[in-house]
Amino acid sequence: MALIVQKYGGTSVGSPERIRQVAARVAAERRRGSDVVVVVSAMGDATDELFALAYRISEDPRRRHPRELDLLLSAGERVAMALLAMAIRECGVEALSFTGSQAAIITNGAHTVARIEEVRATRVREELERGRVVIIAGFQGVSRDREVTTLGRGGSDTTAVALAAALGAARCEIFTDVDGVHTADPRRVPGARKLERIDYDEMLELATSGAKVMHARAVEIGARYRVPIHVRSSFGEEEGTLIVGRETGMEDLVLTGLASESGHARLTLCGLPSGMGPTSQVLSRLAAAGVSVDMVAQADRADGRRQLQVTVREEALPEAREICGALVTELGAERLEERAGLARLALVGSGMHGRPGVYARAFEVLLEKGIEVYGLSTSSISIALLVDAANETAALECLHEAFGLGGER
Amino acid sequence: MALIVQKYGGTSVGSPERIRQVAARVAAERRRGSDVVVVVSAMGDATDELFALAYRISEDPRRRHPRELDLLLSAGERVAMALLAMAIRECGVEALSFTGSQAAIITNGAHTVARIEEVRATRVREELERGRVVIIAGFQGVSRDREVTTLGRGGSDTTAVALAAALGAARCEIFTDVDGVHTADPRRVPGARKLERIDYDEMLELATSGAKVMHARAVEIGARYRVPIHVRSSFGEEEGTLIVGRETGMEDLVLTGLASESGHARLTLCGLPSGMGPTSQVLSRLAAAGVSVDMVAQADRADGRRQLQVTVREEALPEAREICGALVTELGAERLEERAGLARLALVGSGMHGRPGVYARAFEVLLEKGIEVYGLSTSSISIALLVDAANETAALECLHEAFGLGGER
Repeated sequence: MALIVQKYGGTSVGSPERIRQVAARVAAERRRGSDVVVVVSAMGDATDELFALAYRISEDPRRRHPRELDLLLSAGERVAMALLAMAIRECGVEALSFTGSQAAIITNGAHTVARIEEVRATRVREELERGRVVIIAGFQGVSRDREVTTLGRGGSDTTAVALAAALGAARCEIFTDVDGVHTADPRRVPGARKLERIDYDEMLELATSGAKVMHARAVEIGARYRVPIHVRSSFGEEEGTLIVGRETGMEDLVLTGLASESGHARLTLCGLPSGMGPTSQVLSRLAAAGVSVDMVAQADRADGRRQLQVTVREEALPEAREICGALVTELGAERLEERAGLARLALVGSGMHGRPGVYARAFEVLLEKGIEVYGLSTSSISIALLVDAANETAALECLHEAFGLGGER
Repeated sequence: MALIVQKYGGTSVGSPERIRQVAARVAAERRRGSDVVVVVSAMGDATDELFALAYRISEDPRRRHPRELDLLLSAGERVAMALLAMAIRECGVEALSFTGSQAAIITNGAHTVARIEEVRATRVREELERGRVVIIAGFQGVSRDREVTTLGRGGSDTTAVALAAALGAARCEIFTDVDGVHTADPRRVPGARKLERIDYDEMLELATSGAKVMHARAVEIGARYRVPIHVRSSFGEEEGTLIVGRETGMEDLVLTGLASESGHARLTLCGLPSGMGPTSQVLSRLAAAGVSVDMVAQADRADGRRQLQVTVREEALPEAREICGALVTELGAERLEERAGLARLALVGSGMHGRPGVYARAFEVLLEKGIEVYGLSTSSISIALLVDAANETAALECLHEAFGLGGER
């Protein structure tokens, strides 16, 4: 019998009424003959409310009390999973719920940002064999020294895909409040189209570039263990988007989709001495302070000196500015320039590899609209561009149009 | 170093501000040099809110989904314990929290009404040895097959006293919203006086007779393991009431205190055939249906037939009425009479044993006030009387006065 893992997010289980709707859907799937494992998030804003309580006790619970914060936050999914199990049982289908610890979702000990190391799931398998639906708290696990941990952002998606991998599920269904993955954010680009399929690498690029529909960590696990992931709406019956491996022989499309994210900033160290040393020092000093650098670009000037550009998230700007400012003095450079308020656009498509025209076309289109590009980077399946955040929507719209992402294909 | 177990109820940790006040008190105790274990209830109405959610999913979650209900309810203490641990750490005292399962509070498998079988508390001891304050979720445990259980009414008190017994604590302090145990409920009897000490048996009688200050189960464990229990207010520094073993050589006082509880009812089976058979049938039929009988009285009539009176809680009255009605027909008795709306008064005092005047005095006082008694029972340290609920307060007041419970002694 096929095993299906279904994951429902906080909005989908936001009230007792919605929990009953989810229960009806799960019961129907079970009655169709599938074995079903369900992963749930906390109800609605429950996690935010627990955070708010913690902030009324401590200014920085995440750093000061990570172990206790995890115990606190894990209460949210516990409530949702128990209620959902009750609701499924009320539909006449046998069901029971497990915490991350009971389901043996084993993580490392990094509280609030734990990573799954192993899914033992012995009790889950036993209960499935007894014909029961098993509900599992998303977002949480247990470390090898029996401490409750949480997985951080995207935690419930990660739990679901990791369980699907460990149990050898036929597929993992991610039920959410949107109906699938789109060629661009439909709230920004009205012509955006829902994708029927997308491959893991493309989805990973979109997810790491600001597409909110699914978290990158979960996609990575899906790709590694080849778990087909179906992203779909919990409020309807339509098919969503299937995330799968790339099919060989299939004609690759140039672009699959766009994603974007504001809140980026660029620092330029002007007139650095030449050679690799200074660049290396800048990067390692930033890394040592825990500042993540996104794009790096350097250019030699006619006078032999060099311009070095790095981009960071705006949250990290104060720290990055201080470090780079000190290095400008230390290394005898000329000055530090700064540009904040940037948005990062990502053009994603496994077909762009080996088609150099994509770059040129993107620049051409933005130039036509008078939108300046402040930085760029590429991978084999994506191009990222920095523009003023004020131009984010306009840039997405003209690129979406230019690459023919709307309409049928 | 002396080990103290402190228990704080829901009102005491009802908001982040109150949690900070509790933390300050715990930190002060730790700084005075004690080892401290803290047991907490869920914040304010949290448990009621979780129940309300369950009732929006199911009409009878307690019977239909006891396992899931326990998982749900256990989230309440988890929130309180984590926040309290953070707050204590914010006071500069090392602390960490454990769930009932982590603290190895081992119970039987009776969901929603589990009983503690063993307290292993190895992790608790380890952390105490490291000098940390340990916070433990009250009201919850784990069964031998690793299921989360809850202890039912009075659960957090029970957790606290059981931990104090297992850890060999010097005392168990029960912090609550009243300042101790009184000679009668101060809201009903204005002259009621706070007791400095009371012995376990007396406290047990008061607790089982409606005194809300502490739950009988916890007192029983205290008595069995001789744990001194200190009941006191979490909103002040005054001493409360110490519950301890009876001191030999001490002159016993006639009465220690009064308690009362409304919601009792009496059924009279009139004209039963003589002999033990019918009475035995009535009692076993009620027991088989799960109806608890409080008082039983029988009287032979001149005609050789018998009147049998039983008292039950009003909640059980419909079921008891049906059973007794059927038995009246079956056994060829005359009729069933019923009187609901009764209150049960308890006069408690280890000194009443061997002093027959107490009974007489109580009747005399009630007669003077025109208060009729509908049933009575006695133990070696208490007398229980049933009166109309409308007379509950008047009866308490005149008995309190008659036995000189107010004022200094």
